[in-house]
Amino acid sequence: MSQVVSVALDAMGGDRAPEEPVRGALAAVMSPGIRVLLVGDEDALREELARQRASETAGIEVVHAPDAIGGNEEGARAVRSKPDSSMVVACRLVGQGRAQAVMSAGNTGAMLAAATLHLRRVPGVLRPGIGVVLPSANGPIVLIDAGANSDSRPEYLPQFALMGRLLARDVLGIPEPTVGLLSIGEEAGKGSEMVQAAFAAMDGTPGFAGNVEGRDIPKGTTHVVVTDGFTGNVALKLYESAAGWLLSEVRAALTGTPRARLGALLVRPSLRELRDKIDPDEYGGAYLLGVRGLAVIGHGNAGGRGIANAVRLGAHGVREGLLEQIEAGVAAARSARGVA
Amino acid sequence: MSQVVSVALDAMGGDRAPEEPVRGALAAVMSPGIRVLLVGDEDALREELARQRASETAGIEVVHAPDAIGGNEEGARAVRSKPDSSMVVACRLVGQGRAQAVMSAGNTGAMLAAATLHLRRVPGVLRPGIGVVLPSANGPIVLIDAGANSDSRPEYLPQFALMGRLLARDVLGIPEPTVGLLSIGEEAGKGSEMVQAAFAAMDGTPGFAGNVEGRDIPKGTTHVVVTDGFTGNVALKLYESAAGWLLSEVRAALTGTPRARLGALLVRPSLRELRDKIDPDEYGGAYLLGVRGLAVIGHGNAGGRGIANAVRLGAHGVREGLLEQIEAGVAAARSARGVA
Repeated sequence: MSQVVSVALDAMGGDRAPEEPVRGALAAVMSPGIRVLLVGDEDALREELARQRASETAGIEVVHAPDAIGGNEEGARAVRSKPDSSMVVACRLVGQGRAQAVMSAGNTGAMLAAATLHLRRVPGVLRPGIGVVLPSANGPIVLIDAGANSDSRPEYLPQFALMGRLLARDVLGIPEPTVGLLSIGEEAGKGSEMVQAAFAAMDGTPGFAGNVEGRDIPKGTTHVVVTDGFTGNVALKLYESAAGWLLSEVRAALTGTPRARLGALLVRPSLRELRDKIDPDEYGGAYLLGVRGLAVIGHGNAGGRGIANAVRLGAHGVREGLLEQIEAGVAAARSARGVA
Repeated sequence: MSQVVSVALDAMGGDRAPEEPVRGALAAVMSPGIRVLLVGDEDALREELARQRASETAGIEVVHAPDAIGGNEEGARAVRSKPDSSMVVACRLVGQGRAQAVMSAGNTGAMLAAATLHLRRVPGVLRPGIGVVLPSANGPIVLIDAGANSDSRPEYLPQFALMGRLLARDVLGIPEPTVGLLSIGEEAGKGSEMVQAAFAAMDGTPGFAGNVEGRDIPKGTTHVVVTDGFTGNVALKLYESAAGWLLSEVRAALTGTPRARLGALLVRPSLRELRDKIDPDEYGGAYLLGVRGLAVIGHGNAGGRGIANAVRLGAHGVREGLLEQIEAGVAAARSARGVA
């Protein structure tokens, strides 16, 4: 029997809540060993479950949270002023040990604040970072920090590297992940002052392969790309948007003329495979790494499939012991550097 | 008769020099009103011209430069130590008034140093910036700074906006270009400390529409996207690489099965149009804006078509009076702010 993992799901978070989170929860509990604590307004959730011809059984438990945090609220303030919001309650369930992971597709800034406040940082971690799995020509890779910190200090980056590497190893199954530092030029001296200092701080980081450039993300030159949260967030959103736009252009090209439409019927199965390969919903979310609990941040516009995959991502991290690996890794790195 | 523009072309710059620069020069002079000064080793260039069954006629003049700067040399040092390199000589031809624009697909850092040293800055410009034209769902847009500065101060960005806007107006023909500041969150207070300060400095900039995010580049939300040179260079290289990879995946999907290959025959013309639309060689290069001469930086791996388009880009900027517009615009902005 595999371990049963309970995932607290913020059912009021995301652009299409509670419909898609409920749909995602129902899909996720079809996977063996996953229970979902569906957190949100009890009446609304039971109504939505009924509408989707399901009920609070089969691995789903509704946990009442009367309040909700909106997508445009300022994160830290919203978390402080709404202790009974679905997101905060979901994080608390992990803090209390009632769930082993939390997932929200809601306000990212609020999720960051809620997780930091209610789960706290792993001892020794300077700043949590968002680690996201991205498609590349060389298979999935990890980008970290994808936006937890709007300003980063050079010394954060070796920790992002360490956490990102454990994510690549435990979740993507890459035995010895390589790590690149995102810069503008491959040589050691290239890049902003911050990145040059980070390069020096990365010295001795396992797997460190030097600088990489923006072009190396789609190429998958290294298994992990480490960057500050500003650059990482720009890169993440640009990459997703570029992929979405190009696929829509391909679709448009295939329906533009009668001849193309005929051909499109024949190529459709092949293109569907490609779409799945680069679909952001394939992993469905990003880990917030460095807090004492497994926290997954989903796409705001995720549908049921994306939500379900993000819930599975949380459960997967729990089973692989990602959090414990990070705790041990950070402690070992600190003691190797002689930090008490 | 349209004005004849002389473009000095660094024939030894780029991964495929001198073959592709020579090919590009021969293509460019087929356009009306363009002369090319082909700068490089005289013997090598005449030999390459002969190999391509052409000669030094029909708008092409060979200018001898015995030395060349390699792609991996440190830019500023190479420019100082190689005053007779093709790139430096090409820049000097503009400084001397023998050419009105210079184009090189060689070492970007060296081109930046050579242009700054031999053309000097436009009075009042704090830092030159690289303005590049990118494809988007909404038509071509301008990204500036795409990598001239590895660290930027907030006050550089309003000048990048001003220069990028003139590029969008004069070269892309957009009458009143809108400008977005690249950040991680749309609200005014979002982003790094540098970007928050830049937002304040952008106050009063014509066309300024507030923050945009990475996703807004492929969407084409604004006509101009302003950013620091580090983020801009990462974004440019990521975007180009993502487009290249996805198109190669589409090609692979269309040849993967017999059924797909049959369909591919029918959809090929439509996909070729799409490829041209997102081809980085379509514009072929980026302007280095803020120096007293029109300087175009080409793709290192540009083929003849890309080189020819970059040469045309230079000539186009001369005809539209882009440099004079920038000189006047910077002077007006400074006097409006009460700077002597």
